[in-house]
Amino acid sequence: MIEGRLFVISAPSGAGKTTLLKRVMERVSGLSFSVSHTTREPRDGEEEGVDYHFISQTVFLDMIEKGLFLEYAEVHGNLYGTSHQSVLEQLKKGIDIVLDIDVQGASIVRGSDALTGAHIFIAPPSLAELERRLRGRDTESEKHVRVRLENAVIEMQDACKYDYLIVNDQLDQTVDLFTAIIWAERARSHRFPSGKPITGIVK
Amino acid sequence: MIEGRLFVISAPSGAGKTTLLKRVMERVSGLSFSVSHTTREPRDGEEEGVDYHFISQTVFLDMIEKGLFLEYAEVHGNLYGTSHQSVLEQLKKGIDIVLDIDVQGASIVRGSDALTGAHIFIAPPSLAELERRLRGRDTESEKHVRVRLENAVIEMQDACKYDYLIVNDQLDQTVDLFTAIIWAERARSHRFPSGKPITGIVK
Repeated sequence: MIEGRLFVISAPSGAGKTTLLKRVMERVSGLSFSVSHTTREPRDGEEEGVDYHFISQTVFLDMIEKGLFLEYAEVHGNLYGTSHQSVLEQLKKGIDIVLDIDVQGASIVRGSDALTGAHIFIAPPSLAELERRLRGRDTESEKHVRVRLENAVIEMQDACKYDYLIVNDQLDQTVDLFTAIIWAERARSHRFPSGKPITGIVK
Repeated sequence: MIEGRLFVISAPSGAGKTTLLKRVMERVSGLSFSVSHTTREPRDGEEEGVDYHFISQTVFLDMIEKGLFLEYAEVHGNLYGTSHQSVLEQLKKGIDIVLDIDVQGASIVRGSDALTGAHIFIAPPSLAELERRLRGRDTESEKHVRVRLENAVIEMQDACKYDYLIVNDQLDQTVDLFTAIIWAERARSHRFPSGKPITGIVK
């Protein structure tokens, strides 16, 4: 049975991951974000199991207790988390998944036998450039910039544990390279136990 | 020390490998074919160690005897061969090498601890299409077409041993995908023991 491919992406804050992923998702078809769990109410048009798994706070806290989340966080009083099981379910449907996760979460994924995938680390060109980008965001206080830079130094130490390392210097080039990695991973022959390879580029 | 990357390419005759490699080499910089040994005389402008390693028949036969070739063949009375050592020397200079070699040669490379690389198999869309392409070459006799088709069936059985499998249906798409694989391999972080990753796409 051919399952979906898992792309695990991490980057220090300010490396440009959000913009990069938006551009890549627009360009490459057949690629979805993982479906998170949340305790917030569904908004109009949001679908259970597609946009989110909507669960109660009691269930969420119980899932934390049982260690079912790869990562979770509280945002504006609501809980959000990515569960091991929900990623697995999407992969089993044959969907290629982008899992945007921090270095701790990625480390948990690497420790999982079931969640094999291509791990990609997005790095800023330099710490000086990262600092320039963070200061360019008017919303960041001096204290926040410092904390983010210190975290970046720690996170960069994990870069070598990833399969791919991309320096986001010029965004267009980074989008090209990220897309190239997805195409290459889709052409990996261990993905085709039946011996049925892909034809050209699957966009 | 960062060495060059090795790209091992095999394909059944008629799959379109020669045209494909020509297009890819024109497009991607920093990529060279491996330097072969030959017993033929150097032509004007040909340089020892760049175009070929020019050696005598005695030395060539001695190298065969010692098992130093990954593959060799006689063409118009001259001997040509690819030695393990010459590929290694190019890689040590930091040059990315394309090794265009048959499935037996690729198998020897996979058995070598020193020659690690990305193995790419180029397949025709189908045997029927391969037959059509081979018959399209006016130079091929019926007997030769049969032999090539029979060989293709045998060679295709090795496809799953390669890291990547590309079906050459539309040449432009195949060139794009092949190029994507080279870029992706260049972004593999195990290539950067010093922790120094690449910036965007290295063309």
